[in-house]
Amino acid sequence: MIEQELIGLFEETFPFWNKMSEADRGTFLRSSQYVRFEKGTNIHDGNECTGVILIKRGVLRLYLLSDEGKEITLYRLFPGDMCILSASCVLESITFDVFVDSEENSECVVLGGCAYEDVARRMPEAKIFALESALGRFSDVMWVMQQILFMSMDKRLAIFLLDEISKTGEDTVRLTHEQIAKYMGSAREVVSRMLKYFAGEGLVAASRGGIQLLDKRRLRELAL
Amino acid sequence: MIEQELIGLFEETFPFWNKMSEADRGTFLRSSQYVRFEKGTNIHDGNECTGVILIKRGVLRLYLLSDEGKEITLYRLFPGDMCILSASCVLESITFDVFVDSEENSECVVLGGCAYEDVARRMPEAKIFALESALGRFSDVMWVMQQILFMSMDKRLAIFLLDEISKTGEDTVRLTHEQIAKYMGSAREVVSRMLKYFAGEGLVAASRGGIQLLDKRRLRELAL
Repeated sequence: MIEQELIGLFEETFPFWNKMSEADRGTFLRSSQYVRFEKGTNIHDGNECTGVILIKRGVLRLYLLSDEGKEITLYRLFPGDMCILSASCVLESITFDVFVDSEENSECVVLGGCAYEDVARRMPEAKIFALESALGRFSDVMWVMQQILFMSMDKRLAIFLLDEISKTGEDTVRLTHEQIAKYMGSAREVVSRMLKYFAGEGLVAASRGGIQLLDKRRLRELAL
Repeated sequence: MIEQELIGLFEETFPFWNKMSEADRGTFLRSSQYVRFEKGTNIHDGNECTGVILIKRGVLRLYLLSDEGKEITLYRLFPGDMCILSASCVLESITFDVFVDSEENSECVVLGGCAYEDVARRMPEAKIFALESALGRFSDVMWVMQQILFMSMDKRLAIFLLDEISKTGEDTVRLTHEQIAKYMGSAREVVSRMLKYFAGEGLVAASRGGIQLLDKRRLRELAL
């Protein structure tokens, strides 16, 4: 990756880039690596500080992993997004282990966590940016948790979708999110967000005129 | 509460107090209220910005509440602790609703969220302190979530404890955390932390020579 391209990426990502000293910019540039990750690669396993990951192409998935190998997807990152939870040395207050996989062939720039932390010690803007980014994800994660813990919304939606196709004999549920929400006694926003989560997990796909059920086996497991 | 006492409390709580301008200190002092909360009072319900709460006496409990009224305790705050998640206007990136109750008769100082935010706009240290405090709690919350979601550690421990007393006929399980962990195939830290969580919920109490089961009805519900 040519330096000019890297500078452009930093400019877009870090709102404090233009305030950085020449020396600090040099530190960022020297501490960055352009990396391609093949689909399925584990990029971060919660142990070492992998660094701040900027996604140029592809998709990264963040998840929790239990000792027994069970996973819960927290959220996904797309081109233009930044992964900060993988920079454990920047975020000392984060003590839980999060895993990051490349879900597609991905192209990323990995900026060393120590370099970021070094700059953040001098620049409160950099520190605040990292903390706010991480805290924003806290809300995403809480949403997933609440749906699973309280409402079993994942389960209820899976049951609803399977019920619908068993009635119609099709693979596609021809209802709007609004209608589904009404039938389930939920809110449209909740249904839309959970369908997006399902789509990310490869369980359903938005298709013309409805929601196509892609993986009925896993939906049935969810519905148990 | 006399001003000198309030200043002492701020000095202990905010590492940036001594760097604040006279005017900003005045803002903090004028925007603070000494409040007594009776046991069981709801202090914050996720909607408005209640402010930054400093606990002088008593216990506050933070929890999630579902539409159906189900609760999950996230953590508790004790004298000397600060509640920052109740200051929604300081933490814009927090979009989930957290509830705060006074679990004992409590004495608190509530510092207006707008006053804090006003100062934080000028003082990066104040902003960073608020963000880091919130992010530290993210880890606490994730721990609870992981235990419940993955391991059903709450359930497994409840089953284990009830099994033990049904064998011995006593109300106290006379085993060390280490032993329980070994029998359950878990780690001592996990067992200790979950027992602490149970104790906070009033389910068990640490007693001489063991763990006393205080609320067998609720333990049985957990074990279902």
